[in-house]
Formats: sequence, structure tokens, C-alpha cells
Amino acid sequence: MASPEAGRKKKMVDTDVVVIGAGISGLCAAKLLHESGLDVRVLEARDRVGGRTFTARDPSYGYVDLGGAYVGPGQDKILRLVKEFDLKLYKMDEEGKTVSYMKGVQRAVTNPNDPSALSNNPLDLLDLNSCFQKLDAFAKQLPPDAPWNAPRAAEWDSMTVKEFMDKECWTSLARKMMGLLTEIFSGSQPEEISFLFYLTSLNSAQGIDTAMSGAQEMKFVGGSMQVSEKIAELLGNRVVLSSPVMRIEQQEAVATVTTHTGQQYRAKYVISAVPPCLLHGILFEPSLPALKMQMIQRMPMGSMIKTVTYYETAFWKEEGFSGTALSDKGPVNGCMDDTKPDGSHPAIVGFISSTHARELCEMSPEQRKQAVCKHYAEIFQCPEFLHPVNYVELDWSAETFSGGYGANLGPGVLTSYGRELRKPFCQVYFAGTETAVKWSGYMDGAVEAGERAARQVLHAMGKISEDQIWQEEPPSIDFPLTPTEADPLGKILPSIPQLLYFLLAFVVLLVVLAAVLLGVYLS
Amino acid sequence: MASPEAGRKKKMVDTDVVVIGAGISGLCAAKLLHESGLDVRVLEARDRVGGRTFTARDPSYGYVDLGGAYVGPGQDKILRLVKEFDLKLYKMDEEGKTVSYMKGVQRAVTNPNDPSALSNNPLDLLDLNSCFQKLDAFAKQLPPDAPWNAPRAAEWDSMTVKEFMDKECWTSLARKMMGLLTEIFSGSQPEEISFLFYLTSLNSAQGIDTAMSGAQEMKFVGGSMQVSEKIAELLGNRVVLSSPVMRIEQQEAVATVTTHTGQQYRAKYVISAVPPCLLHGILFEPSLPALKMQMIQRMPMGSMIKTVTYYETAFWKEEGFSGTALSDKGPVNGCMDDTKPDGSHPAIVGFISSTHARELCEMSPEQRKQAVCKHYAEIFQCPEFLHPVNYVELDWSAETFSGGYGANLGPGVLTSYGRELRKPFCQVYFAGTETAVKWSGYMDGAVEAGERAARQVLHAMGKISEDQIWQEEPPSIDFPLTPTEADPLGKILPSIPQLLYFLLAFVVLLVVLAAVLLGVYLS
Repeated sequence: MASPEAGRKKKMVDTDVVVIGAGISGLCAAKLLHESGLDVRVLEARDRVGGRTFTARDPSYGYVDLGGAYVGPGQDKILRLVKEFDLKLYKMDEEGKTVSYMKGVQRAVTNPNDPSALSNNPLDLLDLNSCFQKLDAFAKQLPPDAPWNAPRAAEWDSMTVKEFMDKECWTSLARKMMGLLTEIFSGSQPEEISFLFYLTSLNSAQGIDTAMSGAQEMKFVGGSMQVSEKIAELLGNRVVLSSPVMRIEQQEAVATVTTHTGQQYRAKYVISAVPPCLLHGILFEPSLPALKMQMIQRMPMGSMIKTVTYYETAFWKEEGFSGTALSDKGPVNGCMDDTKPDGSHPAIVGFISSTHARELCEMSPEQRKQAVCKHYAEIFQCPEFLHPVNYVELDWSAETFSGGYGANLGPGVLTSYGRELRKPFCQVYFAGTETAVKWSGYMDGAVEAGERAARQVLHAMGKISEDQIWQEEPPSIDFPLTPTEADPLGKILPSIPQLLYFLLAFVVLLVVLAAVLLGVYLS
Repeated sequence: MASPEAGRKKKMVDTDVVVIGAGISGLCAAKLLHESGLDVRVLEARDRVGGRTFTARDPSYGYVDLGGAYVGPGQDKILRLVKEFDLKLYKMDEEGKTVSYMKGVQRAVTNPNDPSALSNNPLDLLDLNSCFQKLDAFAKQLPPDAPWNAPRAAEWDSMTVKEFMDKECWTSLARKMMGLLTEIFSGSQPEEISFLFYLTSLNSAQGIDTAMSGAQEMKFVGGSMQVSEKIAELLGNRVVLSSPVMRIEQQEAVATVTTHTGQQYRAKYVISAVPPCLLHGILFEPSLPALKMQMIQRMPMGSMIKTVTYYETAFWKEEGFSGTALSDKGPVNGCMDDTKPDGSHPAIVGFISSTHARELCEMSPEQRKQAVCKHYAEIFQCPEFLHPVNYVELDWSAETFSGGYGANLGPGVLTSYGRELRKPFCQVYFAGTETAVKWSGYMDGAVEAGERAARQVLHAMGKISEDQIWQEEPPSIDFPLTPTEADPLGKILPSIPQLLYFLLAFVVLLVVLAAVLLGVYLS
């Protein structure tokens, strides 16, 4: 992208479909079109494929996923690709005590589902249970493909997640946990996010249990970027790297796409598979419609620095810890073991999210490394964490060609602009995990969105019928989703206000009883 | 910007400072630098100057301001330019009855400050008064240049304007009025905006009284775009139109700016005077710092369609109306007389804002015209409004090179990113009314921001000292700001909860008194 090049005239390339972005979504779109016999070009801004999946490789640690890494049962589309490309997955090693570090107190439990990991106060646990039950019940009320049509959509979209917490969480533990989970999953604070968007994400991730455990169950041997690399291999020189798109001109069913390198592509259709906020970096002629333009202004990306800290040995395992910890204290809100499945390169992966990411992003990597190690030493109460042998990190908020970690919508956005998400603009169709219905924000959602956009194009070309655009994915045979057994107790345990009403009723009953007894005694 | 041109190599232009954007802010920056003896180039994406001030001209209506139009006392910087360029202002003709149309009921009062325009219920008026008093008192607690440092900044930035309304407005009238004013001034819904940002805007506009009346007192004879045209005249061919910037490369104190036309400029400094969200349209090499990049993702622009409807005569004046109306019913939330000062081209200017703008933006102009006229006929109860002779409008949300009406910040943004607003990035400085301290969002703020950025560059070049960057503007002699006399009653009137406490205390007193009297009587 050197300046002198920009001026050099290059030969126009003619193709059927230009796909913008060689992340999983764009590549899946291109793969499907290619397999349908169309000519495609995938234009990628970076000098690598993979987008928000990025597997760094170095002799010192082998490989490491610094972007999207986890998959789990129920994510049948990405699991189909795993099988197709003969990639290997491994289950996370969660053996050992899980740590929670709240208000400066460390609790460690062997069973990660043991509620005493969080508190010994039954009121805390009742409250947390009732909040989660409510979230799950609300999320299930949303039509997955049109949450803005839910009966209570207007109400839920006019409040922030923090407002839900203010109203529904009675104990500081429930507030802390909801806040923490919001920060870790979105990279934003509860007050930044619409409650309707929060519920939509939960629903898209198949409910609270699946989102919190199942979705983090497995990783790729060799890294998640291999999915993109395998597709790119298939497509060969149809994938063009280091080519950020700067302009899309549409005229009489022909779209001309110009890159910052000065190369131009003439196509019948375009599929944009970049995060919505990056669409602002492309000059559309004619302009994007008003609603689409306003929508992309309202989908900021969460703040997240993913860190991986390597140690000589997995000493935490010897001390009985799994490596998994949650902490209400920064900078790392959540961490897990990231040792390779063969036991090599012992490591802890830690997520610096939301305000912590914003506070630490101007530090040097060395300063961040020290802050992270100090944090581990404190929450595990184990000074050996102060002596890492290696440290790698990626601040996703600093990535121009991703814009951040994942899009978060503030209050009012889904009800005002949600309908625009997947709406095409003349010859341009929109993919990217943010436009997925199921597993939006995950790799699986990227596959769904890319293939759906490709089928929209195939339909526009008259090659498939409209009802073939959306296709149900057969469940994975290798990794079936076992329905989470709803904790029967969870459903019937009272919430704090219910408990208070019960106690009040009990006291009233006692008083009445006492009065009656007194009456009997006196008479 | 035709495609073949993009490839043609053009001669590099060397200059001292490149200014991006020929709105008032960019032009004021360029003017000051030019007058300081520096060589400047102003690159403008559109084929006209003026940015968000746009004076349309046509024989059928003469001229009309479809963008920023109003000025008032206290806006001393823009008033200085009015004087310098010998432009003429005229006072709005507000004679006649002001209309409020709430819940389907029309009220019309001669004195626009007469509270009975809104309600006859004293509780409504007490509530509205106490909300406004509270807003004003809170706004005054903010350091104008660093509202994120206010003692209650974290609390106020973690809530939306709607949350303030839910907490503080006891009557539906107060809620309606606060909601309406938010929509009209920002183009967004109360739930979309941070309460701290709302207070910051109020403080920047010198408090609620000045913001609501003074700032709309005068208009330009000939239109507000003349300010930009006069400066552009001064600068001559240093202003380059139809040149959207696509890339800024910075290397060793030299910035290379490339436009979509393929032209390149090499400068010592760059001043960006475009709305923050449009910075995403420029590819920075090296990338914008993480915090700046996240900030520009979090400054979406409000939704606003400005409409001007012309009639044969100003019949509403004959019926005793001023033309000013507020309405809780869409599509026009607020309107005013827009007849020329000489009485020609009788017209009503109406603002379709926020959700109404989003609902109506996909209609045809003809459909919108009919909706607007029907609205006027209903709220003024005057069917003559159904017969316009002309109609012009501009949907600011559809303007690619403005991005919308004005930036609105959601919860959490000011405290996390406010410090980034005016922070330079290597050789690039940031102007634009959104970066102003005083009258941010107004033309006056655009002047302040442009001149401040120009003086930052002069300081970086060693031409002025650091304490010369920020300069106090002498008050305008022609249009002095008469301090609004704080309504002495307004300050002492109770709020609804205060009134309830008072009544409760009174009842308790009565009961005690009765008991004492009973005691005296019995003894």
C-alpha cells in the first residue's frame, strides 16, 4: 500500500462476486459460491486470513489463539467445517479447583458448578439463581431472527443491562456476577448495553447454561485460524491479501469495488463480511441508505485484550487449581488454563475486558505482563505466577481491520435499526457474525452469516429458490448437544422478594395464630 | 471522482497544513493559519463548503437554511465573524400565540413563557419547574472542559436521560416535555443518551434558559452558509472541493493525505474538522490509537429531517399564531415561522426528529410533505395548512459527508473516552463542533474548535506559547448576552416530593395539635 503504487493504473478484474473480508464469514460465503460454480474474489485488508480468529505461531510457544478460540456442542456449522477439513479439537482441561476472587476473598471449589464457589450466604445464591432464571426466561421470549418483535421489546430496549441489575439484583454478589459476565462476554460495561441486545445475545447462544459452559468446551489443535486457512487454500489466488476496500460504486446491476492499492474489481454482486462499524471505511456511491448508515454508527465494538502467559511448569495444577478463575478485581476478570493438549507450553489465558482494557491499553506490553502476573499471584495466592517464561497478547481494540472484539448495541438500537442488519443494498449483501441469528458473535455465527449471504446471492441470480436461503444445520454426530438438564431446584427456588413475601405471610400467620390462641385462652 | 481518474498519477502538493472538511470549523482553522502566514489546503468531500450549514437557493423561495441556522447572544465567536464579514442577522418573529399540542389537546398562549401553555394543573408545573431547576443545578456542577471529572460524573454517565426522567419526573407532562426537548435538540431518544452527556450539552449551551430561547433568537439574512462562503472566498483555490480524504500516512513528522480522486498532499500538520464518526472513513497509517478508534465508534449522529413548507400567505399570523408549536405527536415535534424578514416566502420550518425521522426516512418527499401539512392542520386546528405552495427538506441522516445531525453519546462514553476528544495523534489535530467546550454542537462551537486546533498547530510550530492556545472571546457589543433573570419563584417552588413531605408534616402537625387540644379539653 505504498503511496507511489496508489497512482499506478491497474487492469480491471471482472468476476461474479466480490467478497470483502477473509474472516470465517467471508471465506464461507466465497467457498459456497465457488462450489456453486461462480467466480469469486475475496479482498482482505490484512496480510493474513482469519479476521477475528488469529493463530500466532512462534517456536517459543508453538501456536496460540489470540482471537476467537473456543467451540462447543450445538455449534453445528463450524463443527461441520472441522470435520470437512479433518481438523482436530481437544477438550479443555478443567480438572482442579476453580477460583473465585470477590471483595478480596479467594474461594476455591472442585466442582465448578458448586455454588459455594461464589458465596456461603444462601440469600446471595437465591438472588443469583432468580436473576439467571429470569434472564433465561426473558431470552426465550424473543423471536431469534427478529427480537425487535418480542412483546416486551420496546421496554427491554429502552433500558440498559445495569437498569435490569438495579431492579432485579438484591445482593451485591448477584450484581457483581452479572456485571462481570457482561464485561467478559461483551467487553463493555452493563450501562453501555441495551437489555434487549443482552437477551438477544443470550438467546442466540442458546441460553445461559450453554453460553456459559458449552460454548467454551473445546479448542482447535493447531489453532482456530486453520479453518480460514483451509478455505483460503481451496480458493487459491481468488483470495487477495493486503487489499483494504475503499469504495463501492453501483451502477445498473454492476458493482465496482476499488481497493486502497488502486486495484478495481467489477462484479455482479458484493458480499460485505466485515464488522458493521468498518463499513464506514468504505465510500458507497450511491450512499448507503440513511437507516443502514445510522445503524453502523451504533454498533461499537467491545474492548478486550487477550493475554497468554507462559510458565516453566503447570505448577497451578500441582497445587490443585484448574487455572480457571473469576475475579471482581482487574485487570484480568476471567482466566483459564491454556496449556497445549500434550501438556507442553503451560500457560494461562486471561481476558482484560471493558474498562480494564481501556485503562491498560496505553501501557507497554511489559507493564501489562507484570500487571497480569501480579494479578494471578494475588487471586491464586501463589507467588510463582510472578515468574513467567513468555507472554503474548493482542489488544483487539487497536486492530484497525477488526475495530474491536465484537459489536455491542446500546439502548434503542435494535428496535430502531435491527431490521437493517441483514437487508441488502442493491447488489451488496451483508455477512459477518454480527448478522447471524444463531451464535451471533461466535465462529459458528460467522459461518451461518457467510453461507446465508452467499445463498441470498444465489437466489438473486435465480439459482436457488427463496426458501433455500435459510437452511437448518443437521446436528453434529461427533459433538452432539446434550440438552442441559434444567436444575429442578433452580426453577422452584424463590427470589429474594418472593422470600420476603413468604416471610411476611408467615409472620402475619403467626400473629393471627397467636391472636386466635390468645382469644381461645381468654375465653 | 469517476473511476478512470482514480488511477491517474497526479503531482504531489506540498503545504504546511492540510485541513479536512470545509465546514465552519475547518474553514475557521484554515483562516487563522492563513492569516498567520502559513500555507494551507482545505479538502472538502462535497462540491460545496458549509458542512452542516447548508443554504439552498432557488428562485421559488429565494434562500433557505436546511442545516444549522440560528444564532443568539452569548455566541460571541460566530457573532465576531458576522461582524467581520458584514453579514446581517434578523430577529425571529415570535409575535402571536405559541401552540402546545399534548395528548390531542391544543393550548395557545400569547406569552411563550406563560406556563399555562403546557398545563393548568399546578402539580404539572411544579414538577416541570423542579426538573428543570435540577438539570440546571447539575449542569453547573460540571467543569466545562472536563465533565468527566465532575464529582458525580461516574453516576451520571452510568445512567440514561430516560433513567433521570423515570426517577425525577412525577407527572406525565414533565416526562413528555423532557422527552420532547431531548428529541428536538439531539435527534435521539432519551434512552439512547447518557445523562452526563445531556448535562454537558446543557452546560456547554450556557444553561437551560439560554439553550432553549437565546440560542434560537436570530437568523442570517441570506443564510448561514455565507460564513463559510466568505472564508472560502478569502482562501481562494486553497479550498479544494469534491475531494473526500481516504488515507493519512504519517512518517517522521510528515503527513501524506490521499483523496479519493488520487490527489496527494504532503503537510507538516493535519487538522481533521469532520464529525468524529466520519474519521472511520479515513485509513490511518499508523492506525489511530485504540482509545481514539473506540471513541469514534461511540459517537453516533442524531436523526433529523429539517422541513420547510411554504404557503401563499402567512395566514397563521392572521389567525393570531406565531407559528411556533411543540407537539408530543409526530411527525413534527417542533416548528416555527420561517418567513423571510421582509415578509416574503411565508413558511413554517418543522423538525422531524429521532424515531419520527427513522420512521419517515424511507417515504418519498411527497409523502413526507403531506404528513407534515396534515400535522400542522391538526395541531394549529387550521385546514389551510393542507395547501402548501412549496416544500423543501433535508434528511441529515442520509448525508454521507455529515453522518447525521450532531453526535450523541450513550452511557459510559464520556467517562471512558472524553479525554480523547481533543487529543492530537502525532501530526493530526482534531476540530469540529463536537470537540468544542462552549456551544458544542452549534456554529459557535465550530468556530471555537477550529481556531483552537489552528492554535495547537501554531504552538507545535513554536509560533505561539501554550497558554495562547485557548483564548477568551470578548463579548459581542452588537448582541450582548443579558443575563437571564433567574425566575425567583422558580428557585423556591417545591418539587412534588417536597410538596408531599410538606403536606405530610402539615397533617402530622394538625393531628398533634388536635391531640393537644383534646388533652386540654379533657383535663
